Amino acid sequence: MEVIKHLLEPNENKIVLLVMDGLGGLPREPGGKTELESARKPNLDALAAASECGLHLPIGYGITPGSAPGHLALFGYTPTDYPIGRGVVAALGIDFPMRAGDVAARMNFASADGEGRITDRRAGRIPTEKCAELCRLLGAVKVPGVELFVRPVKDYRAVVVFRGQGLCDQVEDTDPQATGVKPLAPKPAGERGRKTAEVAAEFIRQALGILDSQKPANAVLMRGFAELPHIPPMKELFGLRGAALAVYPDYKGVSRLVGMEVIDGLKDLEDQAEALSKHWDRYDFFFVHHKYTDSRGEDGDFLAKVAEIEKVDAFLPRITALHPDVLIVTGDHSTPAVLKAHSSHPIPFLIHGRNVRPDTVREFGERACAAGLWGVIPGAMLIRLALAYADKLAKYGA
Amino acid sequence: MEVIKHLLEPNENKIVLLVMDGLGGLPREPGGKTELESARKPNLDALAAASECGLHLPIGYGITPGSAPGHLALFGYTPTDYPIGRGVVAALGIDFPMRAGDVAARMNFASADGEGRITDRRAGRIPTEKCAELCRLLGAVKVPGVELFVRPVKDYRAVVVFRGQGLCDQVEDTDPQATGVKPLAPKPAGERGRKTAEVAAEFIRQALGILDSQKPANAVLMRGFAELPHIPPMKELFGLRGAALAVYPDYKGVSRLVGMEVIDGLKDLEDQAEALSKHWDRYDFFFVHHKYTDSRGEDGDFLAKVAEIEKVDAFLPRITALHPDVLIVTGDHSTPAVLKAHSSHPIPFLIHGRNVRPDTVREFGERACAAGLWGVIPGAMLIRLALAYADKLAKYGA
Repeated sequence: MEVIKHLLEPNENKIVLLVMDGLGGLPREPGGKTELESARKPNLDALAAASECGLHLPIGYGITPGSAPGHLALFGYTPTDYPIGRGVVAALGIDFPMRAGDVAARMNFASADGEGRITDRRAGRIPTEKCAELCRLLGAVKVPGVELFVRPVKDYRAVVVFRGQGLCDQVEDTDPQATGVKPLAPKPAGERGRKTAEVAAEFIRQALGILDSQKPANAVLMRGFAELPHIPPMKELFGLRGAALAVYPDYKGVSRLVGMEVIDGLKDLEDQAEALSKHWDRYDFFFVHHKYTDSRGEDGDFLAKVAEIEKVDAFLPRITALHPDVLIVTGDHSTPAVLKAHSSHPIPFLIHGRNVRPDTVREFGERACAAGLWGVIPGAMLIRLALAYADKLAKYGA
Repeated sequence: MEVIKHLLEPNENKIVLLVMDGLGGLPREPGGKTELESARKPNLDALAAASECGLHLPIGYGITPGSAPGHLALFGYTPTDYPIGRGVVAALGIDFPMRAGDVAARMNFASADGEGRITDRRAGRIPTEKCAELCRLLGAVKVPGVELFVRPVKDYRAVVVFRGQGLCDQVEDTDPQATGVKPLAPKPAGERGRKTAEVAAEFIRQALGILDSQKPANAVLMRGFAELPHIPPMKELFGLRGAALAVYPDYKGVSRLVGMEVIDGLKDLEDQAEALSKHWDRYDFFFVHHKYTDSRGEDGDFLAKVAEIEKVDAFLPRITALHPDVLIVTGDHSTPAVLKAHSSHPIPFLIHGRNVRPDTVREFGERACAAGLWGVIPGAMLIRLALAYADKLAKYGA
């Protein structure tokens, strides 16, 4: 990483990273084609034929990436160097503007009996509106010297953020991961976590008072206490002024983590294309994110995932019309429709630009890219190739 | 490694690792086929066509693996993190049950003149029976507070194991690697080796007395003092309850080093197939080892090695009939018959299972696998792919 930093030669050249979330797939039947291989995608195929291709592993062999670490890799960071705790992911996911030193935790509303023993860890799966109402009620909790934010996520899930001096994420979960027992006390996981554990205990004490009459949501379970990881910004590591063009809050969140500016208010690919064009002169790195390839994979809807890839293919000319100096097209992980979940399979990528050395790949697909120039590489290396082909890196040594 | 440990989600799914020792080969003439490419192996080819394929390097580029580090890699360990000393390899090779804290050393019987100067470092290559007889005689050596084991290996080669409190392998070789000079004294190589060096010196003093009349084997040379490496068991690192189905003692030894249970008394592939079936429910990782591909390679007998591969091909249905969730077929190193020795060439592998993404490889061979999905990967990564495809690893990050 240090090597790259010392070689940086910033210029105005533009890099676009187009991410189809969960792009990698699997065939529906033995010998069949994957979603990407099945899609009609003349633009992506033509681009692949003029690009360097390969597959990438965001984290490592056999490891299934979550969305946040998958994107960290694409942004040039080795994900295991920057673990992102569950509380932070939850806060980022609802677009909560966390600051350095804040401690966030995931909170579930739960049901308890008269003795305080948990009877349902999900409070009968209360709807999001009820969750939002309860979060507003918990706004009444006051702990001296600490600012508290309680925000709904989805259904019974919420997030709590503690802000104040001397807080630290070394606090153990209170969720006993079982029913018939009382929640655990928020114990410090290290000496530095003592104050935060006390703050959390006081929060819970007051919360239980407020929720007493709110059965089935008369208890709370907290887990994943986490601070923002200290991630050096892309500007510092790679000299890139980045802009994130994403629709979903999670991806805006992880973009902010690496110091990108987030273009807000985008609703679809059309908005993203317009924003790209509008902000073209102001940045030199553009992250364009399409969520629904992953969503349809998670749904197990093979053909709908194919259709999303085809939508992105139709969108591609909106990017290429701007003549980016380097264009990467890839995914953050695989989400094969047949698995209805993220998977560990490597993800196809193409990298296009004036200076690339096109290989023999003629279409954009998992098997085609396996025969590409790069073979299987760590995801975090893609940004280095982009910097090189955008002429942003000096020679190493004389 | 730590990452994997935190993602483990143990289940009952079965992984089989089928190792053809020394599998990788070379053509007999330019443009010709390797042993594996020459073999008639319909079962392996069909399996490769439905698998992910590639080549692996057990240790690193250009490095020829010994059998022990080659297998450590296949068991998921980076071999250079766990160096196994020569004494330990010798002890494991004769199936001596070494314990933590034992110090083992290789010992050669040698010939010395009246002044104690070495005249033959191999004692005229005495036969193994003579070696065994001399080892029994050396059983009379007594050193207070230390248990001593002297065991024959082959020809003039033996192994000595010291067992007792406060022993340590920081002891230098006594073998001067030359004739015409006296053996070196067993000097401590560090402060902690002082006691063991003294024990070794006393052992040698008494041994020379006993061997005085045994010319040509009237001297001993010791080297490779070594303790068992501290290798965390596979159960701890990978959550796997492993069983080793090997015929040869060396491979049972290295399996025990990583905490596998060894199924004893197996004489051939038929025994191995029966044992696999019999123990199928008791383990979730099975190491099945076939030695003779390596032996025939070492002999320089190209066609005999081909025949051994064909035997394993015929055996393959005995494994697939059990429907393992993941099946890996590979070797621990290359032993090209034309070289009559281990070599540094990468070794073909296939990994098969429900969740794999088959590539374009249609036969199991060195060149075919080079075009496989994975390219050339570190051997220690295979176990991670197996864990992933056996659904034993959780997602990393949210």
